[in-house]
Amino acid sequence: MAVAVSTSRFADALYRDRLRRAAEEAAARDVDALLVTPSVDYAYLLGYRAPALERLTCLIVPAEGGPSLVVPHLEESLARHELGDLAGDLVIVPWDETEDPFWIVRDLLQGNAMRAAVQDQMWARFVLRLRAALDPIELVEAGPAISALRRIKTLDEIDRLRLAARAADEAIDEIRTERFAGRTERELSARIRQLLLEAGHQSADFAIVGSGPNSASPHHEPDDRVIAVGDAVVLDIGGIRDGYASDTSRTVFVGEVPREYSALYDVLQRAQLAACTAVAPGVPAEEVDRAARRLIAEGGYGDAFIHRTGHGIGMETHEEPYIVDGNAEPLRPGHAFSIEPGIYVAGEWGARIEDIVVCTEDGSEVLNRSSRELISVA
Amino acid sequence: MAVAVSTSRFADALYRDRLRRAAEEAAARDVDALLVTPSVDYAYLLGYRAPALERLTCLIVPAEGGPSLVVPHLEESLARHELGDLAGDLVIVPWDETEDPFWIVRDLLQGNAMRAAVQDQMWARFVLRLRAALDPIELVEAGPAISALRRIKTLDEIDRLRLAARAADEAIDEIRTERFAGRTERELSARIRQLLLEAGHQSADFAIVGSGPNSASPHHEPDDRVIAVGDAVVLDIGGIRDGYASDTSRTVFVGEVPREYSALYDVLQRAQLAACTAVAPGVPAEEVDRAARRLIAEGGYGDAFIHRTGHGIGMETHEEPYIVDGNAEPLRPGHAFSIEPGIYVAGEWGARIEDIVVCTEDGSEVLNRSSRELISVA
Repeated sequence: MAVAVSTSRFADALYRDRLRRAAEEAAARDVDALLVTPSVDYAYLLGYRAPALERLTCLIVPAEGGPSLVVPHLEESLARHELGDLAGDLVIVPWDETEDPFWIVRDLLQGNAMRAAVQDQMWARFVLRLRAALDPIELVEAGPAISALRRIKTLDEIDRLRLAARAADEAIDEIRTERFAGRTERELSARIRQLLLEAGHQSADFAIVGSGPNSASPHHEPDDRVIAVGDAVVLDIGGIRDGYASDTSRTVFVGEVPREYSALYDVLQRAQLAACTAVAPGVPAEEVDRAARRLIAEGGYGDAFIHRTGHGIGMETHEEPYIVDGNAEPLRPGHAFSIEPGIYVAGEWGARIEDIVVCTEDGSEVLNRSSRELISVA
Repeated sequence: MAVAVSTSRFADALYRDRLRRAAEEAAARDVDALLVTPSVDYAYLLGYRAPALERLTCLIVPAEGGPSLVVPHLEESLARHELGDLAGDLVIVPWDETEDPFWIVRDLLQGNAMRAAVQDQMWARFVLRLRAALDPIELVEAGPAISALRRIKTLDEIDRLRLAARAADEAIDEIRTERFAGRTERELSARIRQLLLEAGHQSADFAIVGSGPNSASPHHEPDDRVIAVGDAVVLDIGGIRDGYASDTSRTVFVGEVPREYSALYDVLQRAQLAACTAVAPGVPAEEVDRAARRLIAEGGYGDAFIHRTGHGIGMETHEEPYIVDGNAEPLRPGHAFSIEPGIYVAGEWGARIEDIVVCTEDGSEVLNRSSRELISVA
């Protein structure tokens, strides 16, 4: 029930380095230890994915001293197997069914520990039991410390994001050659998932197909609505390829495009391009959001753009940094995120264009390559 | 990115009843409100699955008064669509990207609230931010209140568990007719996932294949080991069919069975049967664990049974009640759980037999039907 992250085993040095830097990030935040349960953060630090289950598995990364891993006895051999040579760097502490693992965590923390940081997605039941066992140690969020590492992608990670993006582009290119009218959203969504897998994704995690009035619901769940001539159709698709996420949106129109929709789309396309063009090192994330929002407001659709402009992407589809009003964080080379403004007119139609963009040393690279024009499909 | 639970829409009355009973369970525990983020609990109470994402979606079920739903603005139309008529029973409060949803939760709680219970799998970042926003309201675990409902299955739920179990049996029956020797664990695992889907599962969530020495690792992750004559092979497979989980384990032997392994398996088989037979209303859960453990210890393998005897099952593969030493909870009609003792001899071999068992008014029903004999495969 664990899935090895597809990086080769010579990568032990990579995980050693990540563990060391995570400890430094903890120290820099006056956090005595990071407590990391199975999650993408766990996979990022240890190189293997363990399932989130009701028995506590917890990686402890102290600001000073070596890391340890509290693991259910019945998963000890699995953990050692997946860790390979890295197991030698960890104190591995198995616990039996009738033991209390939260007290084991307490014993492993240094006696003078004051603050421990819990992984962002740790289950509430674990958080509350740790709080009781560790009292009076204060629990804070581990997100900032781990995200400080994860948000800066290496060239290898950007390569993987690029390949994932191109694979999603292939699915988009293919589906736009197919017939839309007469198929249900659900059928089309299933077909897109198939195309994502055929293009090399290991999992096709979502394939939003919002047609007609459903195109005005940004996270619409594909249903049995039959697509017809005169529909705008928003496609928002993605999955995981080689450990990294793809996420791209394109909008098509079935049949001849009405003048009014064409005008709306033109506003959106210019806004999306303006946001992509705004990306450069040192630019605050919220400036990129504003670049898109300003043009959409000027086009008369200010109230119809009801979400942020984008989200970071990497091993997860949604991660730091968020391209949203209020995030003054300056962009840095290695930041990777979506730029996906949308315009949604309730009851009528909507549109969204989404690319994955990487901030580079001297500007940006847009990873997706499929056409952003409004294509009329059959 | 949401998946409708496959119950028909006349089921609104079902969800109204569940929401009402959840409020009663909260009141009985001196909890002023249950706070439920997207999870299986959320789907159980509202009838649709929403993805767990970084934007807060939170169902508030107060002990007194009607429930409300805090939802990101961009998911409001999706939520209303999925809720159908049930939406009329809820106060739905959308929040915009630049608002703080945790303060909205605070505003929705009654002024005199003292204790709020957070859903078991709520993300730590939400727990810590709720704690800050709700201070000095105490946060406790919502698990006991919601589990009090979920652990007692209705006849309709037992029907679904039975059909899921039979579908997994079909996959087991089929795979045991196929050749094992010469295939890798990974190949066999992929084949089993395919069989689970062919038998009507919507998702094949796990297909453990532990061969040879790997059969001694209970949660072994199938790898490139080539199965050979002389291997014991533990199969532990399951997924979701019609919203409910299957989970069954069988052990086979490739080629002629050595006398020593046959003796080990005989001990295990008698222990598993003894535990199944021990199930009846009023029997403490731990007694079922002891029934298996006693026979395994008497057979000389006491130290080789390194996990609990079983776990509850329903919409999730692992849920209450747990069949484990220390759980004195009396079994009740409608409890459904696995009985899966195992014997693991590190470096050599292991074995496990697992059935889903339902406690009935007058005893028990074993849902799985595939043979529990030690079958020799090619």
